[in-house]
Amino acid sequence: MRKAHIISIGNELLIGDTINTNASWLGGLLTEQGFYVEQVSTIPDDYDLIYRIVNGSLHQADVTVVTGGLGPTHDDITKKVVVDLFDSKLIENREVLDFIKMIFKRRGFTFSRTNAAQALVPQNCDVLFNNKGTAPGMWFEKNGNALIVLPGVPHEMKYLMEERALPKIHNLFPDREVWATRYFKTAGVPESTLSEQIGDLDEFVNNGVGVAYLPGPAGVTVRISASADTLKQAEGKLTKLKDLLYEKAGDVIFGEGKNLKLEEVTGKILTDNKLTIAAAESCTGGLLSSKITDIPGSSVYMKGGIVAYENAIKISVLNISEKDLKKDGAVSKSVALQMAKSVAEKMGADIGVSATGIAGPDGGTDEKPVGTVWMGFWMKGDHFAIKAVLSNDRLLNKERTVMIILETVRRRLQGMDELPYQLKPHSA
Amino acid sequence: MRKAHIISIGNELLIGDTINTNASWLGGLLTEQGFYVEQVSTIPDDYDLIYRIVNGSLHQADVTVVTGGLGPTHDDITKKVVVDLFDSKLIENREVLDFIKMIFKRRGFTFSRTNAAQALVPQNCDVLFNNKGTAPGMWFEKNGNALIVLPGVPHEMKYLMEERALPKIHNLFPDREVWATRYFKTAGVPESTLSEQIGDLDEFVNNGVGVAYLPGPAGVTVRISASADTLKQAEGKLTKLKDLLYEKAGDVIFGEGKNLKLEEVTGKILTDNKLTIAAAESCTGGLLSSKITDIPGSSVYMKGGIVAYENAIKISVLNISEKDLKKDGAVSKSVALQMAKSVAEKMGADIGVSATGIAGPDGGTDEKPVGTVWMGFWMKGDHFAIKAVLSNDRLLNKERTVMIILETVRRRLQGMDELPYQLKPHSA
Repeated sequence: MRKAHIISIGNELLIGDTINTNASWLGGLLTEQGFYVEQVSTIPDDYDLIYRIVNGSLHQADVTVVTGGLGPTHDDITKKVVVDLFDSKLIENREVLDFIKMIFKRRGFTFSRTNAAQALVPQNCDVLFNNKGTAPGMWFEKNGNALIVLPGVPHEMKYLMEERALPKIHNLFPDREVWATRYFKTAGVPESTLSEQIGDLDEFVNNGVGVAYLPGPAGVTVRISASADTLKQAEGKLTKLKDLLYEKAGDVIFGEGKNLKLEEVTGKILTDNKLTIAAAESCTGGLLSSKITDIPGSSVYMKGGIVAYENAIKISVLNISEKDLKKDGAVSKSVALQMAKSVAEKMGADIGVSATGIAGPDGGTDEKPVGTVWMGFWMKGDHFAIKAVLSNDRLLNKERTVMIILETVRRRLQGMDELPYQLKPHSA
Repeated sequence: MRKAHIISIGNELLIGDTINTNASWLGGLLTEQGFYVEQVSTIPDDYDLIYRIVNGSLHQADVTVVTGGLGPTHDDITKKVVVDLFDSKLIENREVLDFIKMIFKRRGFTFSRTNAAQALVPQNCDVLFNNKGTAPGMWFEKNGNALIVLPGVPHEMKYLMEERALPKIHNLFPDREVWATRYFKTAGVPESTLSEQIGDLDEFVNNGVGVAYLPGPAGVTVRISASADTLKQAEGKLTKLKDLLYEKAGDVIFGEGKNLKLEEVTGKILTDNKLTIAAAESCTGGLLSSKITDIPGSSVYMKGGIVAYENAIKISVLNISEKDLKKDGAVSKSVALQMAKSVAEKMGADIGVSATGIAGPDGGTDEKPVGTVWMGFWMKGDHFAIKAVLSNDRLLNKERTVMIILETVRRRLQGMDELPYQLKPHSA
């Protein structure tokens, strides 16, 4: 299997100021393209170190991708290294220079000598023209291995890698194995339960299919992958496992796709069913409405929401019974139920949802510890509430509450009785 | 200066499934402790590679920190490598075994042989006892250099590093230089303007003070750092620069601290002034209320909010003039002004704020392109609106709008006339 190395350059990556998201993105892309990503090296803006590490990679890896260390604030050290490594010299690239001048003119900035230096490139590289910024990418070849040098700005790096470097990689390595990868997103089930539900996968793993459970704050993602000469063959290896996953865990899989979000899926079901929704929030403080409206086109199904943070607002704006509030407390089944119904009626929505709880870190009691949340649902007359006891972490509690609500709505609209995390509905 | 290397082990880090946040955290800590973090190597669960890279680091760096590759799912490869590297053998640590058994009992899980293997440690290491999980950390020394091996679970890794490994590092290297670092958080000013405002800092940089501008979605952070034999001396080097920063840019610095958030600062000012706030949101969809309520104790000043996503809700719940809505459109000065005043009155808050705009990616016109936002402010009778034209990115537009509103409230309450990004107020 062909090897890839990634080299990330920049002091900010080593002293804890910036998290290296570029390397993670590049690792994913190169893996999908059939490379074994053997090493990521993160090093400072230091000529000797960059020279040593890049030179070493050039001899060990079929593809080396270097990001960062370009541009005026880094003194262009990376460019100096590659000029020396490839025994080259810098020449001015006219096309790049004209483009940089045009960008500066459009923004109304004055053009300086420092900026002109960005148009200098090693004579023996292929320039990867950068439509997204002022620093061009560079492609070198040595003994059949490729060295790709890219700026560190994430959106420029991604653009240059996908649009400029990938076609050249395909050209240089037409014979490489290709990986097929699929991501199944689940919600409302812990990793251990999910893996028990899916059961033993040795049969697939022994046949070269990779399986990973990736837990995240919004739920567990199951990744499966396989390699073959063609994408079609690789995908063929996954078919049987995919069917098994749906058979065993179809109820908790809300969709496929690495970046698919639950709010997108629940939103699509609302759209397809021509239903509208409204949210009444206390402990989630607006996060539920915000997540719903993160999705473009959500104005079709989202009426709006009321954040009733203070108890007086629950009474004055949401018309919650003052008697119930006193008797049961704000974090209670009765208040959650009323909030959901009230916001639906007030906003003329088909569905009303609500959350009231103790987000933390303080404010808990023996009876209602920090993390206690009551969620209310008013779905075309079906009126119920759910109680969950979450963690001591305020932001995590907000995230999880939103996820349970969105997943409950999804399941109910798809005709499932089971609630997330095997929680039980309390009828009104 | 003493050198540190970080080695992160795990396939998930190389194929793009997990972002390496551990390395970033460790880099920050080791930098503060006076080490030059020379390299971060991220490598797969592969015996030969781990052996080669760890062995190389042991000879090059004063301190090497290895994370991951422990625990049953990784086949304990890291442990095998260190046993061979230090010519050792595994022995059972009674204290660790008892602790693991206790954890399993408390959780009601059955204890298996796989779990018992976690209590096996190399005979010649110092065990870093892990109160937060089942995999202990390990400390080795060779030729005066230290090798620290930690589990990859972030909260366990951080605990073991801070509580167990740091005291031993201090003991082994009592002579090391110490770094003082300070973070100044700014909002509402672009990086280029901020650096012009602060001006030339060569005098400080030439005296060994490091300065960095770190842009982020919520604003630019200015980091300054210096090293000396003691923390007090190092901090002394920063005093003059700190004064200069406040003199030149005090109006845009909202506070100090790497993780300080604007919503925390604005919240504290509201608390100190015994003022309450309420939010009426359209394009931000609840994010403004959610950010405000992210802060523990926000119930003191946050009354609540109304997410009036649909225009009909703006009329029915917020009493916006239907005539104005038709005449000026939802994204307009008049609607923003009314939303702010109406939500303040409805919720009995001292301050009402609002946002109505075209978040994107679609829905723009020539007159009101995507990214156009009107924000309204009702601050004890002071009634004004701000217009900004942001980007094509929906989530970024939501974030930025919230930031401009929080920063405007902060500046007004602190008696400043200037608005963020030199925006102009439009009076009612």
